[in-house]
Amino acid sequence: MDVLFAGLGSMGMGMALSCLKAGHGVQGSDPDPARLDTLIRQGGQPVAAGGPAADALVCVVLNADQTRAALFGPQGLAGRLAPGGVIVACATVAPDFAREMEAEATARGLLYLDAPISGGAAKAAAGALSIMASGQPAAFAAAAPLLQAMAETVHHLGDQAGPGSAMKAVNQLLAGLHIMAMGEALALATAQGLDLARVQQVIGVSAGNSWMFQNRAPHVIAGDYAPRSAIDIWPKDLGIVAAMAQDAGLPLLLVETALAEYRAASAAGLGRLDDAVITRHIAARAGLALPDGGQD
Amino acid sequence: MDVLFAGLGSMGMGMALSCLKAGHGVQGSDPDPARLDTLIRQGGQPVAAGGPAADALVCVVLNADQTRAALFGPQGLAGRLAPGGVIVACATVAPDFAREMEAEATARGLLYLDAPISGGAAKAAAGALSIMASGQPAAFAAAAPLLQAMAETVHHLGDQAGPGSAMKAVNQLLAGLHIMAMGEALALATAQGLDLARVQQVIGVSAGNSWMFQNRAPHVIAGDYAPRSAIDIWPKDLGIVAAMAQDAGLPLLLVETALAEYRAASAAGLGRLDDAVITRHIAARAGLALPDGGQD
Repeated sequence: MDVLFAGLGSMGMGMALSCLKAGHGVQGSDPDPARLDTLIRQGGQPVAAGGPAADALVCVVLNADQTRAALFGPQGLAGRLAPGGVIVACATVAPDFAREMEAEATARGLLYLDAPISGGAAKAAAGALSIMASGQPAAFAAAAPLLQAMAETVHHLGDQAGPGSAMKAVNQLLAGLHIMAMGEALALATAQGLDLARVQQVIGVSAGNSWMFQNRAPHVIAGDYAPRSAIDIWPKDLGIVAAMAQDAGLPLLLVETALAEYRAASAAGLGRLDDAVITRHIAARAGLALPDGGQD
Repeated sequence: MDVLFAGLGSMGMGMALSCLKAGHGVQGSDPDPARLDTLIRQGGQPVAAGGPAADALVCVVLNADQTRAALFGPQGLAGRLAPGGVIVACATVAPDFAREMEAEATARGLLYLDAPISGGAAKAAAGALSIMASGQPAAFAAAAPLLQAMAETVHHLGDQAGPGSAMKAVNQLLAGLHIMAMGEALALATAQGLDLARVQQVIGVSAGNSWMFQNRAPHVIAGDYAPRSAIDIWPKDLGIVAAMAQDAGLPLLLVETALAEYRAASAAGLGRLDDAVITRHIAARAGLALPDGGQD
């Protein structure tokens, strides 16, 4: 297949290279010329004006505004697709926005897959992502060779746009709360003089365990806040969750509290650091010292 | 060993029967005569006034006040121990309280193991609990045959009382927050029209997963709130966590929010139901209908 990639960040680049490895032709687009150079060195091409129409467009940008611009804006790439081509939209967005984009695609004779991704940069590079997908059967069929190249697991969540993004929002609600719960737990453990590596070990075999605890606690224990996933993801993603809840008349008190805390951490200058640094944000209020990796 | 059990509830009974199975002599005490009858039918005895001094006292009551009364109150059983006998204290209490009880035991020539338990009634019955324990090496040594009978895993967390209870508090912080995070997640999923069984399946292989999500979501999906672990545990246990945090000058915003929510759920009459019913408490605010098992 000939596939266009809008967005060659840590996720998009891995997905584009996975498609190249699988034998697809890849044309990429990114505001950063260095990212595009990397793709070209690996066998990809820049999106060419006036080239032949492509079969698919994978959009791996940050948010709804960027998605709309990358698809249908003045520089948008939807116009570069052949009739019946498929858009695979991977940003975390509200389900209503996904439905709006699907309607816009349909009006232009294109297919649309609501396909938020999960798994991080390493799994993107390995072609082993999880994709929480919904869309018309024709959209799934058209995207199948790409999904196979990029994902280990594709969750089929419904036959129109919306449920894919809704499922991603539910996952982000849990993930964002679990990271902050870890921060509060490790701050309390520090106040109590417990050894944090021992705490991680005990929690790992106890009812308090979570995927995020085991994934992020090592960052705190090492004092290493080089960003694998940054604090600034959470004001965005929990903001989407909070807006969805508000639309449903559903007060979610933990989400609202965590959203305020992540915004406060970002405002305190921690936004670009790894999200495990929320632990330091919490512990600092009591003057508690956490392990210091010396990087920041 | 001759061991006294103070408290024959769902946890204490299982632990007492595990000790009987391992060949220890067990004398039990419980305010409910039916519980004591059960123990006697399985080969145990009631705690006899004026009987020979025992080797150990396992205290499996609800909270600090009950622990103090069961050990050192007018009806307390510490006086029934031989010199050098060991107290195994299993309630979830504050670390400072555990240290106070250890000092009291030491003053009476007794050993003390700060030994909160985790795992639930089924694991108690199977002799397969996790115990988060701290105490003097002599206390561990004296209690070893009982720990072997009751537990699959004994975490050695320090050589005096305190760290055992601190570790349990950290676990309860996480567990209590994760249950409520599940409640918010399933309420949002319901508002979005997602199938909850499918949500559980997807979360199980995603970054939003937690031990509690996988354990409690089936109760919500079945609409079955028969209590395995009741809402009323959480005002108590998160109350301990909040008090510890306050003593350390450490504001924990998620804990404070969750504590208020659990108290509200209890005040709304849900206190005796399974703690997964927090989902219904949250969803009810938006008039969302969850699966109804028909039991309540």
